[in-house]
Amino acid sequence: MTHEDTVIALATPSGAGAIAVIRISGPEAITICSRFFKSIHNKRLEVQKTHTIHLGHIINEEQLLDEVLVSLFKNPKSYTGEDVVEISCHGSHFIQQEIIQLFLRNGCRLANPGEFTLRAFLNGKLDLSQAEAVADLIASDNAASHQIAMQQMRGGFSNEIKALRDELLNFASLIELELDFAEEDVEFANRYQFRDLIERIIKVLKHLIDSFAVGNVIKNGIPVTIIGEPNVGKSTLLNALLNEDKAIVSDVAGTTRDAIEDELNIEGIGFRFIDTAGIRDTEDVVESIGIKKTFEKITQSQVIMYLLDASKVTTSNSKDFNVEIQRIQDKFPDKPLVVIANKIDKADVDLIKEQFNYPNLLLLSAKENIGIEELKQKMLEFVNTGALLNNDTIVTNSRHYDALLKALEEIQKVHQGMDANLSGDLLAIDIRQALYHFGEITGEITSDDLLGNIFANFCIGK
Amino acid sequence: MTHEDTVIALATPSGAGAIAVIRISGPEAITICSRFFKSIHNKRLEVQKTHTIHLGHIINEEQLLDEVLVSLFKNPKSYTGEDVVEISCHGSHFIQQEIIQLFLRNGCRLANPGEFTLRAFLNGKLDLSQAEAVADLIASDNAASHQIAMQQMRGGFSNEIKALRDELLNFASLIELELDFAEEDVEFANRYQFRDLIERIIKVLKHLIDSFAVGNVIKNGIPVTIIGEPNVGKSTLLNALLNEDKAIVSDVAGTTRDAIEDELNIEGIGFRFIDTAGIRDTEDVVESIGIKKTFEKITQSQVIMYLLDASKVTTSNSKDFNVEIQRIQDKFPDKPLVVIANKIDKADVDLIKEQFNYPNLLLLSAKENIGIEELKQKMLEFVNTGALLNNDTIVTNSRHYDALLKALEEIQKVHQGMDANLSGDLLAIDIRQALYHFGEITGEITSDDLLGNIFANFCIGK
Repeated sequence: MTHEDTVIALATPSGAGAIAVIRISGPEAITICSRFFKSIHNKRLEVQKTHTIHLGHIINEEQLLDEVLVSLFKNPKSYTGEDVVEISCHGSHFIQQEIIQLFLRNGCRLANPGEFTLRAFLNGKLDLSQAEAVADLIASDNAASHQIAMQQMRGGFSNEIKALRDELLNFASLIELELDFAEEDVEFANRYQFRDLIERIIKVLKHLIDSFAVGNVIKNGIPVTIIGEPNVGKSTLLNALLNEDKAIVSDVAGTTRDAIEDELNIEGIGFRFIDTAGIRDTEDVVESIGIKKTFEKITQSQVIMYLLDASKVTTSNSKDFNVEIQRIQDKFPDKPLVVIANKIDKADVDLIKEQFNYPNLLLLSAKENIGIEELKQKMLEFVNTGALLNNDTIVTNSRHYDALLKALEEIQKVHQGMDANLSGDLLAIDIRQALYHFGEITGEITSDDLLGNIFANFCIGK
Repeated sequence: MTHEDTVIALATPSGAGAIAVIRISGPEAITICSRFFKSIHNKRLEVQKTHTIHLGHIINEEQLLDEVLVSLFKNPKSYTGEDVVEISCHGSHFIQQEIIQLFLRNGCRLANPGEFTLRAFLNGKLDLSQAEAVADLIASDNAASHQIAMQQMRGGFSNEIKALRDELLNFASLIELELDFAEEDVEFANRYQFRDLIERIIKVLKHLIDSFAVGNVIKNGIPVTIIGEPNVGKSTLLNALLNEDKAIVSDVAGTTRDAIEDELNIEGIGFRFIDTAGIRDTEDVVESIGIKKTFEKITQSQVIMYLLDASKVTTSNSKDFNVEIQRIQDKFPDKPLVVIANKIDKADVDLIKEQFNYPNLLLLSAKENIGIEELKQKMLEFVNTGALLNNDTIVTNSRHYDALLKALEEIQKVHQGMDANLSGDLLAIDIRQALYHFGEITGEITSDDLLGNIFANFCIGK
């Protein structure tokens, strides 16, 4: 990967819009752009100040392509740390492509996914975990995942790791220095302070590792299994939950929402709904395959919702429901289960309360908007957002999680080694390994493969 | 319609992208923005120069929403002529909405479609036909429609109308002045010069009106009827034509292309392909309904392509094809007809040439990419792009066309009136009417209804 060349990409989403932004970064960004950009005031781009905007035309061989605004960012005061030009043109697909093609023919290369952010990392504008947070930030679709990504992008997580790494590095140097004076049996590294540091590191690492479970769930949405026959009112319930959410201001927002069907956002926390059929006791082979699948889905979820049509419950058939609910509770004793009696406006409330004596029983009418607020509060209760609300550091990236696990393993070896009074040269090996894994997180240690993997997940133009 | 308030909208397409741009325009744009924007250099937005860019954070009640770039455009040096702020944020749908919602809660109103351009028109930054060209420019998807829209946006068309209107207005004033001195029988308006002007105007109007047919076809794509049975290779032919086109540089371009199936772009000219079945002579009632439909489609098209599978032609069945071709030619003598013998690589070339002795016969194999280039050249030949290539003014907007027709009618009345030696007061009435229609085009004469209609077709954010 070289960043001696100048790259170009569309930075805004493809599609119809008022404007589109084309981003160019690299040593030739300004010179190439100025060959085709004619300012309406006849200003030369090369001599303009950084962070200024210029109105003019993109002209190729006397043919006017578009009237554009050109924003200038001069090295190192730009996102990538290189010279950057952003061309704000009319949002026609044709115009975007014509301008990009023009620059591709004249010395630019099409940027790879995430290449602008990769360059920012390589130029020291952000560390690796911050760079990864940029992609998370763009992908964030609720308040919780947004907040985690924002915190990581601002360096909250990597600053903590970096500080510990620096302390550890310091001790490692002292211990390695001791090796040079091995025959004199000196101790430059204070063993008490060192043990204290190792124990602090273990505590922090364990805390971060524990946060991954929460972080992952928040990032991807909390999986909720809904057990319920067709027509008990699942869609109406999801709609009622969704309609409570604040209106989304966009002409095409509906499209996005359709694509992630059965995904809800309740007070900034994402929930993913997994639909299943019932799991009534049966001897039918085909049906028991269905039950197996239902159990698999429940295993993956954090909360179970049992939805029933209260208007159809009678004293005689309520037993069947109870047997089913009991089977689920027995099978998954640790998972919170909410029994939702829907269509309560058409049901006998006393009968329902009598027949379904569960602590988590909710009487609800999705259609009449009764009990929706209670359900939302109930669902939020189940979510362990303590860490989030405390503005604590949360790990959401499985690469970081992996490196943290490995670092912990090495640090624990160091700890055990100290207990066993191992010699400095043996301790030093494990410390170096731990440092290596810390470095992997923040990007002090990288490989082309690793960077390739990380940035391949970015969108083009970032 | 008031533009005393401050409006906001997403200016970039909705969807995933590296960045999104939110546009705010109005008297409060800068003050509202500065309440939530904290520059990293602690600069106050209000005192910054126009056309400058500022890095900072959007913060609401101590919660960090995003790291953004804010571009500042100060009244009157902006697109709308008002104070404008453009916020370039991360391309997450969630972040876009949070920022827009924040500003909506704090004094901004969501912009109507085209409202930024409407404000630009109302503030005299562009005339009405230029404003309309902005929407055409965004919708342009080939070189020809792009060039026409660009020319119109730069005022090519309205400048011509405006110059004629000014001259006419001048004469109208002189003639009306004469009325004040009616008893003295003076002529302030030189009748020779006036006749000359009227004749020039008639010539220009006729030319513009004639250009509408060409312009409309270029804007919407040239309709081409393909007559051919299934399996004669129509899809393969369209693909072959398309694949010759330059590669489109975009991650999601495929999506767009799928949506406009059977629309091709050959050297910058759009073609729309209208598929029909054959029209063989038949006595079957159902089939003759189909034939009627085919004829309707041909009527709407500019070029007819007759596609046949050359590998299936024999001396005995070729007559059927010829009868069909002859029927079409007889029915539409003015429409160019191309006979395309596809799958020529599997056919007897001599037989085909012998059986189909047409000037516009093309021997082609879509699969083997034989004859594709010839077909493209043939199609371009049929397109009257003379006006386009001469960089002449072309009318594409039916509103303009309508106003031009009405203006011509009035001007012709004036012309006839002069021939009949009508008195000045009678001439003046028709001149005023003509001036009115000229004014409709450029927007000197408007109504809220008219503006509403025009800008409703814009996308939000422009």
